Amino acid sequence: MATELLRVGVIGTGNIGADHVDRVANQVSGARVTALFDVATERAAELAGQVGAVAMPTASEVISSPDVDAIIIASPGEFHAPLTLECIAAGKPVLCEKPLAPTVEECESVIAAEQASGRRLVQVGFMRRNDAGYRHMKNNLSSGAIGEALLLHCEHRNPDVPDSFTSQMSMTDSVIHEIDTARWLLGEEIVRVRVISGKQTPNAAPHLHDPQLVIMESQSGVLVSVEVFVNAKYGYDVRCEVVGSSGVTSLGSQDLGNFVSDTRRTATMPANWRIRFGDAYRAEIQDWINGIAAGQVRGANSFDGLCATHVAQAAVRAVTTGTTVEVPVLEQPAFYH
Amino acid sequence: MATELLRVGVIGTGNIGADHVDRVANQVSGARVTALFDVATERAAELAGQVGAVAMPTASEVISSPDVDAIIIASPGEFHAPLTLECIAAGKPVLCEKPLAPTVEECESVIAAEQASGRRLVQVGFMRRNDAGYRHMKNNLSSGAIGEALLLHCEHRNPDVPDSFTSQMSMTDSVIHEIDTARWLLGEEIVRVRVISGKQTPNAAPHLHDPQLVIMESQSGVLVSVEVFVNAKYGYDVRCEVVGSSGVTSLGSQDLGNFVSDTRRTATMPANWRIRFGDAYRAEIQDWINGIAAGQVRGANSFDGLCATHVAQAAVRAVTTGTTVEVPVLEQPAFYH
Amino acid sequence: MATELLRVGVIGTGNIGADHVDRVANQVSGARVTALFDVATERAAELAGQVGAVAMPTASEVISSPDVDAIIIASPGEFHAPLTLECIAAGKPVLCEKPLAPTVEECESVIAAEQASGRRLVQVGFMRRNDAGYRHMKNNLSSGAIGEALLLHCEHRNPDVPDSFTSQMSMTDSVIHEIDTARWLLGEEIVRVRVISGKQTPNAAPHLHDPQLVIMESQSGVLVSVEVFVNAKYGYDVRCEVVGSSGVTSLGSQDLGNFVSDTRRTATMPANWRIRFGDAYRAEIQDWINGIAAGQVRGANSFDGLCATHVAQAAVRAVTTGTTVEVPVLEQPAFYH
Amino acid sequence: MATELLRVGVIGTGNIGADHVDRVANQVSGARVTALFDVATERAAELAGQVGAVAMPTASEVISSPDVDAIIIASPGEFHAPLTLECIAAGKPVLCEKPLAPTVEECESVIAAEQASGRRLVQVGFMRRNDAGYRHMKNNLSSGAIGEALLLHCEHRNPDVPDSFTSQMSMTDSVIHEIDTARWLLGEEIVRVRVISGKQTPNAAPHLHDPQLVIMESQSGVLVSVEVFVNAKYGYDVRCEVVGSSGVTSLGSQDLGNFVSDTRRTATMPANWRIRFGDAYRAEIQDWINGIAAGQVRGANSFDGLCATHVAQAAVRAVTTGTTVEVPVLEQPAFYH
Repeated sequence: MATELLRVGVIGTGNIGADHVDRVANQVSGARVTALFDVATERAAELAGQVGAVAMPTASEVISSPDVDAIIIASPGEFHAPLTLECIAAGKPVLCEKPLAPTVEECESVIAAEQASGRRLVQVGFMRRNDAGYRHMKNNLSSGAIGEALLLHCEHRNPDVPDSFTSQMSMTDSVIHEIDTARWLLGEEIVRVRVISGKQTPNAAPHLHDPQLVIMESQSGVLVSVEVFVNAKYGYDVRCEVVGSSGVTSLGSQDLGNFVSDTRRTATMPANWRIRFGDAYRAEIQDWINGIAAGQVRGANSFDGLCATHVAQAAVRAVTTGTTVEVPVLEQPAFYH
Repeated sequence: MATELLRVGVIGTGNIGADHVDRVANQVSGARVTALFDVATERAAELAGQVGAVAMPTASEVISSPDVDAIIIASPGEFHAPLTLECIAAGKPVLCEKPLAPTVEECESVIAAEQASGRRLVQVGFMRRNDAGYRHMKNNLSSGAIGEALLLHCEHRNPDVPDSFTSQMSMTDSVIHEIDTARWLLGEEIVRVRVISGKQTPNAAPHLHDPQLVIMESQSGVLVSVEVFVNAKYGYDVRCEVVGSSGVTSLGSQDLGNFVSDTRRTATMPANWRIRFGDAYRAEIQDWINGIAAGQVRGANSFDGLCATHVAQAAVRAVTTGTTVEVPVLEQPAFYH
Repeated sequence: MATELLRVGVIGTGNIGADHVDRVANQVSGARVTALFDVATERAAELAGQVGAVAMPTASEVISSPDVDAIIIASPGEFHAPLTLECIAAGKPVLCEKPLAPTVEECESVIAAEQASGRRLVQVGFMRRNDAGYRHMKNNLSSGAIGEALLLHCEHRNPDVPDSFTSQMSMTDSVIHEIDTARWLLGEEIVRVRVISGKQTPNAAPHLHDPQLVIMESQSGVLVSVEVFVNAKYGYDVRCEVVGSSGVTSLGSQDLGNFVSDTRRTATMPANWRIRFGDAYRAEIQDWINGIAAGQVRGANSFDGLCATHVAQAAVRAVTTGTTVEVPVLEQPAFYH
Repeated sequence: MATELLRVGVIGTGNIGADHVDRVANQVSGARVTALFDVATERAAELAGQVGAVAMPTASEVISSPDVDAIIIASPGEFHAPLTLECIAAGKPVLCEKPLAPTVEECESVIAAEQASGRRLVQVGFMRRNDAGYRHMKNNLSSGAIGEALLLHCEHRNPDVPDSFTSQMSMTDSVIHEIDTARWLLGEEIVRVRVISGKQTPNAAPHLHDPQLVIMESQSGVLVSVEVFVNAKYGYDVRCEVVGSSGVTSLGSQDLGNFVSDTRRTATMPANWRIRFGDAYRAEIQDWINGIAAGQVRGANSFDGLCATHVAQAAVRAVTTGTTVEVPVLEQPAFYH
């Protein structure tokens, strides 16, 4: 069995990439890290030493290495499509962090290449699909227990962002998670999006609209409201509720436990997304590894990645123009059925 | 002291009117019911007998009766303004159920008459201002503990409505509560409103848009999102959250208690608005009575009633036209400062 | 109707007595305060002035006053029985704060006098019977929905007490509420009690055992565990749970609302018993007034008061001796069926 | 790296053993299952086939196999000590499910052998130490934020047990978890235990006392109350609260998510301990594997196992005799410091 361990190469070892290295090396079954790359070469070398991997001088060398069976891409978004194309060319499975690519065109090039290769190789890192809370909601929805879905309410709050963060990035980096969540929970596409900016928090850079309210509609008319607030200060808080025709299902409290003092009953919230979604990321990676062993892509595939970017780009136009933007439904190739 | 009991006449003894009769007669201090009127004369007579009051043949007789010091109007909305005007003419304090009137013009006539009378006589029945939960939110907001208010999220769900209920009535009968709540919590006016209808519940009459999503903006740009869903089936559920620049405050759970069986931890929710807001209504009536003794209007006044109708009418236009409707800010007469 | 207002005299106008004065004068229907007495004569005079009552020089004058129809006793416990006996002698209904008396013998003298008078005149101030949460529990129990009651878990925590408070008073002043709660919820008597003292809080006076754990058993063997902690510092926290053979019912959260900041989701708890049980006290007084009008004692009667003191005294012996104390079941006179 | 995978043998592949096989094979990093044994040979063979291991004809062969580096013992409790002794004799690390042994004598023999071997080889399966909720409590306690611990309240409820389950097994199989939890949270030993049986549930076998209330005391006097109820029917429910001198900390809700219908807000509870503690078990196994790599025993060691059995046996005597049983503090050998 030992020789069958999947040999994983990791490209990009910033926060999330380093977490993925640790997960593959120390938290999941059936894989180990053999190679990694980051432009911060010292950090990459140090990490490589910790997990018995080799730090390589370029991403391409990781992808083409004979010691690498599969690749995780956690580099900045602009490199996602070119690197994913290289993985496809090398015939190796790849887990690409969201977004699959910042532009629809790049996503389409990935889909074209993947189809041409004849094999499903690409998974996109929408880890919420592996979160116990979202799965509980999906089960309540599928069982018919709340009737038909009518509304989806989401809150997505981060404590803060760097000054370089823009109003458009709120769509492409944050709301893109809710876009995938909506598609996955509802089983249909988003067809319309508008973005409303109101009073700005004094804690954001002047160029940034924050918070913003995103109103989307699905094919059957389900309204999806998303509050995105990236300088919420008080903590990391992600909530989701589906309102159905006969009931409601929502994420439970994500609190770590209770603490009472000074006439206040306090629940300790997860401080950031790494804590909140740690279990989901671990399950995602395990699922990806198991899927490779079974010759399957079990998570979000590259068509899901295309659709999410497609809607996120519409949301960017909605931010920029202040109008309601129609989102044509993309036809799903039979390859992804 | 006994002779100082405020003698209250109640006009309209349907559900809420009958509850008010019971409250004045049996649950609050300083008042008794001496006269009442309803078009359902038998019901009125029976109620009158229970509380030692006289059932009168017309509303006007209640208002002009020498045995009546103050009036509660709980008749259908179309009669609110004419009856309130009669009360003002009689120089008697009046608690008028919301809305003050269905049209802005009627509300303005009430304000004109009240100012001409030289005395503040009119209170409007926005009972949420007396609810412990909303007061807790207002305190958290006033204390500065959550920073500046940026967003207000509201859900307003009723189990069901009769077939005669229209999409416009969702604004004038239900959302009008959130309009007053927003004005009262934020301390500023609503200036813009749009209404978005999505997928309709199969449990509503065909002519009714249900649920609807109402997006309003305040003078300083605070976004107010209201889900109104009048055939939610599962129960009566009213929720409210203010998102501030450094924290969040929301209504606590309104659950009556817990019950566990069959691997489900269940909280018993209030079945309807009479249970949910029973305490608030009682406090409102007590406050109204105490205010009369002190020569004050302590709750929502007729200018508040005008503003609520003003915004609700804009929301009705938003429903009808599908557009974003601007709401000019009305100047508050010095009389209501 | 006005002349039918019940004229109430209040004896003892410390914290709870002053609250009762305010409730009768300003918060309930059908009564007014006409006379009051307190050894702190200035305070009594001031209060009397606020509510249009007369401050009398002695308690006995309140009881015998022709302007007083019914009496509330909120004086220190040692005066409860003598004053209650005076009320019975005067043939006037009385609401006596708990305990009915500190000793079983005094309680028995009250019962004897009440029976001899031929009329039920005495109610004891166990206000939890009027609390919405406890009523919800009782309903869940009565409906059979949790099967047979097997265990009752209670926590009773106060922020602090004065130095004069003793380990015995934890039983007679605090746990006596749980004793009545257990009898009322379970519908049977307590027959055995032991008290276990463990590690003492550094925040209590050296002579005081605090916290203490009280374990009682009912006639059918239901175990009742009570944590009593009178220097809990963090707030006033009263909780109760019944474990049944097929489910559990408990008090819901008593929180006033939510507040989030600094990665902590906080619920504001009631700061003290006056806030926590304010609604229950109001309902109790209203119920008492309505009961008098109907010629009934609707709350805890003097036999309930006797039983509670009977068990509390057994608990005091358990504290003092460190042993398990058997509590003989008292026979309920037919007069109290 | 691949050749460094820890080769694990699993003895006993009933419910928990089979779960451990799956965890080692499919959910954790750094190990694989190479051998297993169960008296149910068909089941063992099937499991072995699924994970690429060999089903061996005896437990001893698993322990002595050259293809096995470390052993998990999940056989019935009576075999724990003999098998653990064999592992020690073989010089191989072992994770033994609780209890380390049913008798104090056997536990002592394990400790003696382990010390004689000169190496720490034995970990006992008290997986709650790896549960996020209990860790949150321990952190709140260690930080001093709730002052000194004074009381520990625990509930331990199972849906049901087979008829063969006895009142003593409630101590040795269920309460033993709370015993370890108390020692670990409080950092001191249990010195006194009494068990109180009250009204029995109609859902238990006649020979079984259920529920039972266990009252323990720690060296410094902290009272530990444990309700153990093994036929609670409604679900699996484990709760824990530490009351400190200035605050309280407790496990958060363990609910999977919310679901609302029919005026009931419902939280889905974990149906059984496999779901409730699945994450804790996984973390425990990962920690054990990592500990072996580091030459450490990071979880409960065999002295912890001895102490837990020591107290559980005292609780068994308390059940049998109905008395309060003193528990002498065992001296911790320097080997376990």
